[in-house]
Amino acid sequence: MYAIDELREMIRVELERKEYAGEPRSLYEPIIYMLEDGGKRLRPLLALLAYNLYRDDVEKALKPAIGIEIFHNYTLLHDDVMDDASLRRGRQTVHKKWNSNVAILSGDAAAVTAYKYIEYCDDKYLRRGIDGFNQVALDVCRGQQYDMEFETRDNVSEEEYLTMIYLKTSVLIAGSLRHGALIAGAPEEEYAALYKMGGYLGQAFQLQDDYLDAYGNVNDFGKNIGGDILINKKSYLLVKALELARGETLEELRGWLAARDFDPARKIEAVTAIYNRLGVDVLARQKINEYIEKGNEILEEIRVKEEFKETFREVIRELVGRKK
Amino acid sequence: MYAIDELREMIRVELERKEYAGEPRSLYEPIIYMLEDGGKRLRPLLALLAYNLYRDDVEKALKPAIGIEIFHNYTLLHDDVMDDASLRRGRQTVHKKWNSNVAILSGDAAAVTAYKYIEYCDDKYLRRGIDGFNQVALDVCRGQQYDMEFETRDNVSEEEYLTMIYLKTSVLIAGSLRHGALIAGAPEEEYAALYKMGGYLGQAFQLQDDYLDAYGNVNDFGKNIGGDILINKKSYLLVKALELARGETLEELRGWLAARDFDPARKIEAVTAIYNRLGVDVLARQKINEYIEKGNEILEEIRVKEEFKETFREVIRELVGRKK
Repeated sequence: MYAIDELREMIRVELERKEYAGEPRSLYEPIIYMLEDGGKRLRPLLALLAYNLYRDDVEKALKPAIGIEIFHNYTLLHDDVMDDASLRRGRQTVHKKWNSNVAILSGDAAAVTAYKYIEYCDDKYLRRGIDGFNQVALDVCRGQQYDMEFETRDNVSEEEYLTMIYLKTSVLIAGSLRHGALIAGAPEEEYAALYKMGGYLGQAFQLQDDYLDAYGNVNDFGKNIGGDILINKKSYLLVKALELARGETLEELRGWLAARDFDPARKIEAVTAIYNRLGVDVLARQKINEYIEKGNEILEEIRVKEEFKETFREVIRELVGRKK
Repeated sequence: MYAIDELREMIRVELERKEYAGEPRSLYEPIIYMLEDGGKRLRPLLALLAYNLYRDDVEKALKPAIGIEIFHNYTLLHDDVMDDASLRRGRQTVHKKWNSNVAILSGDAAAVTAYKYIEYCDDKYLRRGIDGFNQVALDVCRGQQYDMEFETRDNVSEEEYLTMIYLKTSVLIAGSLRHGALIAGAPEEEYAALYKMGGYLGQAFQLQDDYLDAYGNVNDFGKNIGGDILINKKSYLLVKALELARGETLEELRGWLAARDFDPARKIEAVTAIYNRLGVDVLARQKINEYIEKGNEILEEIRVKEEFKETFREVIRELVGRKK
């Protein structure tokens, strides 16, 4: 089995080739810009790992794996426009560096490019591959829609929140595993199990992201700390805080959410203090561990060599032990 | 062979079923809104006609045909955001009725939905079908990119302009014919010929649209007359006018293009007068007829029954004899 670093290197080299970039170059520059900044390459890595569980010729899964990474970056391109985010992985977002139209259209081109790459597989897997990808892509849109709707609601439940992040984030991680296993010819019950496992991992991963927004380190995190707090983003921390806060604490929290003029540093400090008081940081860590446990349980049931499972566990540790 | 009205009715009924609309409904409402307003249904009609050249069971081609219509409406959704257009087929555009985020995200969901519908075909046609659709979808993005870049350029040549509209508009019309013929099992040389014919038809169709912006009737056209003129849209008329104008006429035209404060009606009147003086309306009509001729020539060469060709000619007449 390939080591994680070897797979990451293969992904880097394939992305470096920029085979996807056609004419006019201006249409593809923002896609190149998005893809060249690194990132964890988590999704293509998972696709290759899942493929490698069943087959050795992982180079045959490289293009579909890259396709998933391109798809992921397309969703980020459009999300950043919709959220009017200015920073992504420590760099200017595309719609800030260029403009919204560039981000919309390059995103559209990236989506099609993703389909082009994903269909690199044996004909016998093509229909299920495209079907699965369509389902994932629509779920991501559904998740983003719920996410946007939650922003204007004050009563988002934990369950609703978890469903939203499942659709917006986890299905793509799950789909990466499923696609890799599918095109390697895995038995259906196993690629379905990997999909389920990916769902739990994705949940842990997104909750970690929410957690790090308040409790991370800016240099590692690549985003400004407290960014979610400043824009009243309905993160897991805020959803739980709104659920648990009573009396003066609730009043104080609502005060910060309603505040129009405020010192950013003070708001971050104050809201984080409320989170600490309510213990939502601890609850988030507990929830993360819960999902990791569930993911691990499925991993134990899959009938592949122990050596393979260890590589998977390494990715999981990297993923959710991460400081960024 | 089915009559055009019968095919249109089948398309209407299938769209009416709104099978594509899932949860949350808010994600799909703008897609329903876009699709319910009628329009000519030109692309699905062409797909069904091309299918019907080779097979009688056109109901089997209905979902892919609808997929093309959904794809078309997705591009309109995003284009309207990028162009900040306020009116589409006489109704408010989605980003005006809702907002830009809704238009971006619903457009993204519509694009995936299009893929879902397009893949309704026998497995043996799936790869070529998806490949062809990917190529068309990327070409549409490329065309839109050129279109946006032309807006800030003063020296767009006729050739560049014709390439741009070919990519932005004609390839999808061409692709509709090709896809219909492909999934009906047409010989490759014939679905390639239909693609070529569709390209010419698309060119005629788009030039007609440019022409009608200045010379049409608002009630039939569904858009405000002179809309292109008001925003200095690089239409065929303006591209040719900038190429042909000299001396005082060029100065007057440039003056209107540079004007910041103006009475809309006066600008439309003045620029149209310049078009008349330069004869670009006549040139546009000539070019339209040229493309229709080329399209008809290909139609003559395709080896299908004369009865089928007559139905096609009817569509062409409707298309380019149209006042709207």
